[in-house]
Amino acid sequence: MNMNDIIFKKRQGNVLTRKEIEFFISGYTKGEIPDYQASALLMAIFFQKMTDEETFYFTDAMQHSGDVIDLSSIKGIKVDKHSTGGVGDKTTLIVAPIVAACGVPIAKMSGRGLGFTGGTIDKLESIPGFQTSLEPEDFVKQVNEIGISVIGQTAHIAAADKKLYALRDVTATVDNISLITSSIMSKKLAAGSDAIVLDVKCGKGAFMESIESAEHLGQLMVSIGKAAGKKTIAVITDMNQPLGNAVGNSLEVQEAIDTLKGNGPKDIEELCLRLASYMLLAGEKVATSDQGYEMAVKALNSGEAYKKFIEFVKRQGGEVSEGKKEIQLPKASYERKLIAKEEGYLFEVEAKQIGMASQHTGAGRETKEDSIDLSAGILVHKKIGDYVKKGDCLATVYGNVEEKIEKALFEAIKAFSFCKEPIEKLPLIKKIIE
Amino acid sequence: MNMNDIIFKKRQGNVLTRKEIEFFISGYTKGEIPDYQASALLMAIFFQKMTDEETFYFTDAMQHSGDVIDLSSIKGIKVDKHSTGGVGDKTTLIVAPIVAACGVPIAKMSGRGLGFTGGTIDKLESIPGFQTSLEPEDFVKQVNEIGISVIGQTAHIAAADKKLYALRDVTATVDNISLITSSIMSKKLAAGSDAIVLDVKCGKGAFMESIESAEHLGQLMVSIGKAAGKKTIAVITDMNQPLGNAVGNSLEVQEAIDTLKGNGPKDIEELCLRLASYMLLAGEKVATSDQGYEMAVKALNSGEAYKKFIEFVKRQGGEVSEGKKEIQLPKASYERKLIAKEEGYLFEVEAKQIGMASQHTGAGRETKEDSIDLSAGILVHKKIGDYVKKGDCLATVYGNVEEKIEKALFEAIKAFSFCKEPIEKLPLIKKIIE
Repeated sequence: MNMNDIIFKKRQGNVLTRKEIEFFISGYTKGEIPDYQASALLMAIFFQKMTDEETFYFTDAMQHSGDVIDLSSIKGIKVDKHSTGGVGDKTTLIVAPIVAACGVPIAKMSGRGLGFTGGTIDKLESIPGFQTSLEPEDFVKQVNEIGISVIGQTAHIAAADKKLYALRDVTATVDNISLITSSIMSKKLAAGSDAIVLDVKCGKGAFMESIESAEHLGQLMVSIGKAAGKKTIAVITDMNQPLGNAVGNSLEVQEAIDTLKGNGPKDIEELCLRLASYMLLAGEKVATSDQGYEMAVKALNSGEAYKKFIEFVKRQGGEVSEGKKEIQLPKASYERKLIAKEEGYLFEVEAKQIGMASQHTGAGRETKEDSIDLSAGILVHKKIGDYVKKGDCLATVYGNVEEKIEKALFEAIKAFSFCKEPIEKLPLIKKIIE
Repeated sequence: MNMNDIIFKKRQGNVLTRKEIEFFISGYTKGEIPDYQASALLMAIFFQKMTDEETFYFTDAMQHSGDVIDLSSIKGIKVDKHSTGGVGDKTTLIVAPIVAACGVPIAKMSGRGLGFTGGTIDKLESIPGFQTSLEPEDFVKQVNEIGISVIGQTAHIAAADKKLYALRDVTATVDNISLITSSIMSKKLAAGSDAIVLDVKCGKGAFMESIESAEHLGQLMVSIGKAAGKKTIAVITDMNQPLGNAVGNSLEVQEAIDTLKGNGPKDIEELCLRLASYMLLAGEKVATSDQGYEMAVKALNSGEAYKKFIEFVKRQGGEVSEGKKEIQLPKASYERKLIAKEEGYLFEVEAKQIGMASQHTGAGRETKEDSIDLSAGILVHKKIGDYVKKGDCLATVYGNVEEKIEKALFEAIKAFSFCKEPIEKLPLIKKIIE
C-alpha cells in the first residue's frame, strides 16, 4: 500500500477501504506518513467527502491509535457527555453532579481549551487546590466510592486525532463533518464509557450555524456511536447567545455553583436538567426522558446535586470552607461595566463576539502554550428579547490588566444589537436524535 | 497575511491575489511555510483550479524564486525548446545543431531525467568525456563563438518549482494544468532565452492523453509565455508510440547522430525539421515556418547540422575520432531479440509500456539517487501500421545485467498488439498554437 495512491484514490472520489484508512491512521500516528501527505489527503476528503462507513473506519482507527480506557472495574452503566463547544458552556460542572447524585457513575476525562475560555479542566483548576491528574487506580476508586470523578485527558487517548487535529487547524481542513465526527467520537469511544450524550451546539456562536448542519453532525455521531456498540443520544441546542451569563473560568465555576444551589440563570438550569434527563435515560436509571427530567429536578432541588459537587471537589483536593461548604474562587482586580447607550429590545447578543471579548480579557488561550487568567472574563446581564433602557448595565468585564479590559469592552459592545419591536425568546433545545 | 487563510480562500473557490501567491511561493522557498500547508494548498488548487491570471502570477513568482539567467551578452535572438516528455524523445540533440547551423544561438539548460530514460543531460553524458557543467562565462563564450551550448540546469533555477515538484510527486497533485504550466514555464522563463518553442506531447505515452487536454496545456503555456513578453509557440505532437526507434541513453544519442547524418528514422527526422522550422521562425531567421522548414532541410542535407553537432561535442570535451569524425558510444554487454509470435498489422506499440521496459533495463532512474546504465535500453524496429510476420524481430533489448533484460522483455512484449486490417499511420504533428 502506498500513501500517494490512497490520496489519488480519494481525490478521484473513490471510497477508501478499511485497510487503506487503517494504513493511513496507523502510519501517520507512528510518523511513517509525513504531515504533507496527511494534509493532502485531508483536503481531498474535504472535497470528496467520506461515506458513513468510511467515517466509521476512520473513527475506529483513530480510537485504537492510542490507549483505550477500560472502565469495566467501575460498577454500573457509565455515561459520558460531550459538547461540541460554545460560549459560556459550563454544563459539565452542573450535569455531572446531578447525574452522579442520581446514581449514574461519572468517570469523565475532559480537555483544556483553546479559544474563548479554557476547557472544563481549566475551569476546575480555578478552584484552589483542585487536582485534575489522578492515577488510573485512584480515578476508578473515586468513582466507585463517590460516583464521580473528572480528570484531564491523557496524551495517549486517540493519539492520531491529536496529531491530525493540530494539522487540520493550520491547513483549512477543520470543517468537514466526517473529520469532526471522527475527531469527537474517537476520543469518546476510547474514553471507555458505555453510553454517550452529545450536546450539539447550533447557531452563530457554534461551529454548526444552521440547524441542518447541526442535525447532520448529530445524526452522523449517533450512527457512529451505535455502530461502535454504545447507546448514543444527541441533543441539538441553541448557541446564538452565550449560555447563562458567565464567560470565563472562575466566573463560570461560580455560575455552576449558583445553579447547583438553585440560583443560576434559567437557561443554563433548563439545559442542564434536559441533558441530565438523557444521561439518566442512557444510564438506564429511568425508562423515559421525562422521568429522567423529574429525577434530575429532584436531585437539584433537594440539594443532593450540590452536596455531590462539594464531595467531588473536596475529594480531588479543592478547598472548601468547613462551615458553610463554600468555595473561594480567585477574583479579578478590575471590573468595568458596559452601559447601554440605546434603548430597545435586544435583537442579538452575539456569542462569538462575547467569546472574543472574553479571550481579550485573558480568559482564553490563543496558542497551546499560552497561560490562562483564571479570574478574567465577562458577565453578560441581558438575554436576547430582554428590554433594555439607556444606562442599563449590559455586561461586566473582569480582568487583571487594564488594557486587556479596554480591548475586551471594545469587542463586547459589538455583540449587542437592538430593535424596536418585542421579539420571541429563542428555544434552547432544538431537537433530540437517538 | 496568513497561510491558513490563503488555503481557505482557494478551498472556497476564490481567486488568489498576486500578493497572496507571492507570499506563498516566497515563504515556501525560504522554508517559512511548511510542506503540509503547501500540499493542502496544492490539493485545493487541484479541485478549485487557478485562473490564467493566477497561473501567470504563480509562474512569475516561481521564476523569481531562484536565479534568473541573463543571456543579454549573447548576440542574437536566443530560442529555447522544451518537450513535455515522451518515450524516445531525443529531439534536442538533433534540433539544437540544426538551428545553430542556421545561425540562431542555442544557449540551453537541460535537466536529468526521472522515469523511462535519462534526460538530455544524461544522454549527452553517454558521450565519453562530455562535460555538462560549465562556468557561466564559458557557457556564454561558447555560444558566442560556435553558436551552441547545452549544460545542466543549476539548482538555483526556479528554486520553488524544485521543492514544489518533489512535493506534488508524492501528494497526488501532479496533474493540474496550471501547476504543470507554471512548473515548465517558470524554468523556461528563468533560463533567459528570448523565445520558446514547446513540444507538447499527446497520446497514451504522454501526460496529456487527449488532444483537448494537450491543446489546453499548449494554449495556457503560450499565453503565459506571451504575458511574460516572450515569443512562444506550442507544437502538439503524437506520443502514442515511441519516437524514432531508440529508447535509452547512448542508443538515443546514436539515433540522433544517424538522423543528423540523414540516416535516422523518418518520424524523428520529420519532427525535428518541423520543430526547427518554428525555432527559426521564433528566432526571426525566416518570415514563415515553411521557409524555416526549407532552411532546416538544407542544414541537415548539406551536413552543416552534423558538423555543428561534432563541433559542439568536441568543444564540451566529448571524444571524437579525428579521421572520420565519429563518436564511440558505450555498448551494452548483452542483447536479446523480441520475436513476433503472431502475424498482422501493428495496432499499438504502447509508448508507456516500452518506457517501463526501458526503465527495467537500467536506462532510467526510479529515484533521484539511482544511477543510470547509459548503454542499456531498447530499439523498437516496428511502427504502428507496419505489417509484421511471425518470426520478425519487433525489438532488441540491450543491457548489462541478464535478469534486468529478462524483466524488460517481459514488459516490452505487452506493448505490441496486432489487428487483421491495415490501419492508417498516425500523423505526427497535430496542431500548432502561436
